[in-house]
Amino acid sequence: MDQIDAVAETADAAAPALADLAPAVRAKALVALADALLEHADDLVAIAMDETGLTEARLRGELKRTAVQLRLFADTVVDGAYLDVRIDRADPDFALGPRPDVRSGNEPIGPVLNFAAGNFPFAFSVAGGDTASALAAGNPVIVKAHPGHPRLAARTAEIGAAALEGAGLPTGTLQLIEGQDEGVAMLKHPLVKAASFTGSLRVGRLLADIAAARPAPIPFYGELGSVNPVFATSAAIAARGPEFAAGLAASVGGSAGQLCTKPGLVFLPADHGLDAAIAGAAAMEEHRMLDPRIAAGYRHGREAILSVEGVRLVAPGSVRFDDDGQGWVTPTIAAVALDDFRPHPDALLGECFGPVTILVESPAGTDYADLLESLFEGELTVAVHRTDGDDVTRLVRAAARRAGRVLFDGWPTGVAVTPAMRHGGPWPATTSGGTSVGTAAIARFVRAVAYQNAPEDVLPAPLRDDNPWNVPQRIAPAGESTTWGASVS
Amino acid sequence: MDQIDAVAETADAAAPALADLAPAVRAKALVALADALLEHADDLVAIAMDETGLTEARLRGELKRTAVQLRLFADTVVDGAYLDVRIDRADPDFALGPRPDVRSGNEPIGPVLNFAAGNFPFAFSVAGGDTASALAAGNPVIVKAHPGHPRLAARTAEIGAAALEGAGLPTGTLQLIEGQDEGVAMLKHPLVKAASFTGSLRVGRLLADIAAARPAPIPFYGELGSVNPVFATSAAIAARGPEFAAGLAASVGGSAGQLCTKPGLVFLPADHGLDAAIAGAAAMEEHRMLDPRIAAGYRHGREAILSVEGVRLVAPGSVRFDDDGQGWVTPTIAAVALDDFRPHPDALLGECFGPVTILVESPAGTDYADLLESLFEGELTVAVHRTDGDDVTRLVRAAARRAGRVLFDGWPTGVAVTPAMRHGGPWPATTSGGTSVGTAAIARFVRAVAYQNAPEDVLPAPLRDDNPWNVPQRIAPAGESTTWGASVS
Repeated sequence: MDQIDAVAETADAAAPALADLAPAVRAKALVALADALLEHADDLVAIAMDETGLTEARLRGELKRTAVQLRLFADTVVDGAYLDVRIDRADPDFALGPRPDVRSGNEPIGPVLNFAAGNFPFAFSVAGGDTASALAAGNPVIVKAHPGHPRLAARTAEIGAAALEGAGLPTGTLQLIEGQDEGVAMLKHPLVKAASFTGSLRVGRLLADIAAARPAPIPFYGELGSVNPVFATSAAIAARGPEFAAGLAASVGGSAGQLCTKPGLVFLPADHGLDAAIAGAAAMEEHRMLDPRIAAGYRHGREAILSVEGVRLVAPGSVRFDDDGQGWVTPTIAAVALDDFRPHPDALLGECFGPVTILVESPAGTDYADLLESLFEGELTVAVHRTDGDDVTRLVRAAARRAGRVLFDGWPTGVAVTPAMRHGGPWPATTSGGTSVGTAAIARFVRAVAYQNAPEDVLPAPLRDDNPWNVPQRIAPAGESTTWGASVS
Repeated sequence: MDQIDAVAETADAAAPALADLAPAVRAKALVALADALLEHADDLVAIAMDETGLTEARLRGELKRTAVQLRLFADTVVDGAYLDVRIDRADPDFALGPRPDVRSGNEPIGPVLNFAAGNFPFAFSVAGGDTASALAAGNPVIVKAHPGHPRLAARTAEIGAAALEGAGLPTGTLQLIEGQDEGVAMLKHPLVKAASFTGSLRVGRLLADIAAARPAPIPFYGELGSVNPVFATSAAIAARGPEFAAGLAASVGGSAGQLCTKPGLVFLPADHGLDAAIAGAAAMEEHRMLDPRIAAGYRHGREAILSVEGVRLVAPGSVRFDDDGQGWVTPTIAAVALDDFRPHPDALLGECFGPVTILVESPAGTDYADLLESLFEGELTVAVHRTDGDDVTRLVRAAARRAGRVLFDGWPTGVAVTPAMRHGGPWPATTSGGTSVGTAAIARFVRAVAYQNAPEDVLPAPLRDDNPWNVPQRIAPAGESTTWGASVS
């Protein structure tokens, strides 16, 4: 593990220089990285198609999203709101005794370890959202390559490191490691200060426990998947049945259902009458799954669902293994009555990674809010299909207590990368309250530091009165509030 | 443990109603709690004096601070910036495909368990900062009483619960439990969603590990103490030697040194010549320690320090046990040459809770920045005493990497409660990046939720276009930025 030490030490050595760079330099480097990825799109997409079985259209779209995401974080760096700068001016006349000048702002946390995901070879891998947000915050990043796309990971890291260094960032800003043991060793390394992960609940729990058990624990931001339940009212189905059927099939079948946000359970009225429409919409071309192991897991999970008494097939779907051992699939849409669903939480309530979903046919008058609270602990998303005549307030409040995103009259796949987006939720959706999509993801990789009565010349730039980086500063002037501040130790 | 279940269920039942209350109602309840504490000041301070041995002046000041803190959080609730409201309007023409309307804001995390501290019977106990920030965020709070002041805890909880319920908050908003086993059982309870703690590294680590090992892990915000190193330049000592000596003794001796921010190590030039001034300033009246166990631990730690070869006494101080077994102390200030200090990290580098500090006499030209980085991992504070002629930039950058607060020409005790204050630092100072002092403490007890394409009537009030609570909203209008947003799943 000498190599692990060397990588960690290189990252640690890069950290102070990286932290001290002006935001414009860091932003330009992120844009340079985005440009470099797009320049090499043909090369990268070809490798990705070969290694993952995802379609060219999906991969080109994902690469574009990855580049846009880097540019978005470049904007975020320059904007500076994420620094959460607070300036409380000294107040010698404060009621509880003199109050000093105190200023705080976010600073980089230190070297970040990012476990790349298999299902997004660009957007959640070497140059994906976790890397982009950690770099934007000013941290060196070590990526543990996903074994599903090793050549793509190596090529992306090569292009990425060259682009970042070419833009003036220190050597060691972006490094790649490979291997499960190496990933664990790096997670335990004292110079690593935070980690991120997208993957299964089993592996995520294992890594979260390692991070928590370190002599010095570090934050571990794991995105461990989700069932993403959908609740549809009778009125919504009556008003938009065919559209609902088409949207459902597309959301379940896209990318062979290998998305964290795939809807896995759909609660709808028992008399929906959509069997034919759903079966028609689910009749898609075969799609290769990411790798044989995932395909085998999918086959197993799908069979477990279909073997439950009372489960019937609406769209049978298919699983076929080719001569190379790769699995090829079309979407499977099953249905079960609510009363037959309840007794089988083990088979029906967990995430089955792949293109399968279960329609839970619920009697008229079913209280979706109570149902949601009784069945779900933590989800990335809850979707509500309703009409203006439906009162869904209780359902929405329950959904907000159990999920990171509540969406309406739509499907959870297709996560927009915007400032307000949340991709995270209560355990087991994620290990923390953080988000791994959207600009708020940067908050995972910073730490606030306060400066008390600091001379101007040693204050970090964003905290200075002359505000050379022109960032938002929240200023609490002396004597403005009679209730602010106390200084009794 | 039926009682633990009952308390947790009562808190859980109160959570939704509490979360739905308008900010003005929650704010008024916090003010009512502050007023109730001040109304009962004579009663509460008398119990506290008896149970803790702290002086009347200190306790009256602390109670006032506690009340001011509650009022400050009332302001914070009404202000609403802590909600971090973000509104990204739909953009049908976005380059990567239509972008939905996405809005996010912070919501209460759920029932919070607060392990009260022994050394601040008001400010970090039943109605202290952890409770105030969790209530302000809209969560029910369960306080595990500190065994050092059981009667005070019970009386404060009684007054507090009555005040909160009288102001319209649900029954079960503030509850008290007692006992170590009960605290652990509550920490493991599935209905508890976050916990806070102030105390020793040993107990904090134990509780943090329990929180992390739960079937559903929860955030655990522990403040585990700190050595709070001080670094003084030759020029600072030359310019302000007597003032430095007086400030040091006051900071070490105040409240018998039983503060998380007591300076435990003071690096200063070997030729400081302050022995007499420090010895004079440290000659204080005896002060009772909080309880016999803490006094015994202090005596043991002090003896370990004084037994190290090369350590000499500048101010001898004293430890005396009375007939009730209570320990009485005056400050001990020791000194050691840097070369004699380095070989004894076990005896000299840990926190010794009580009125002792060590002057580390450093040769001219000692690189304080390197010294700091080699000795310290995570501290609540680093203090720098310098003059305008000193270049302390490297030292300050190193301090910021290792501490949550860097302060200048002053002493770490006396933590102002303001929006910018940070009371936290890298492990082992705290278990997380949070702060337990200042209004930013509220961020520990919220969780962001995003709403996508939500109809206006089910949006939480702070996310609505009509903004009925008049909170800050960060709005990203459609089409403003060409780099915002991407929706390729």
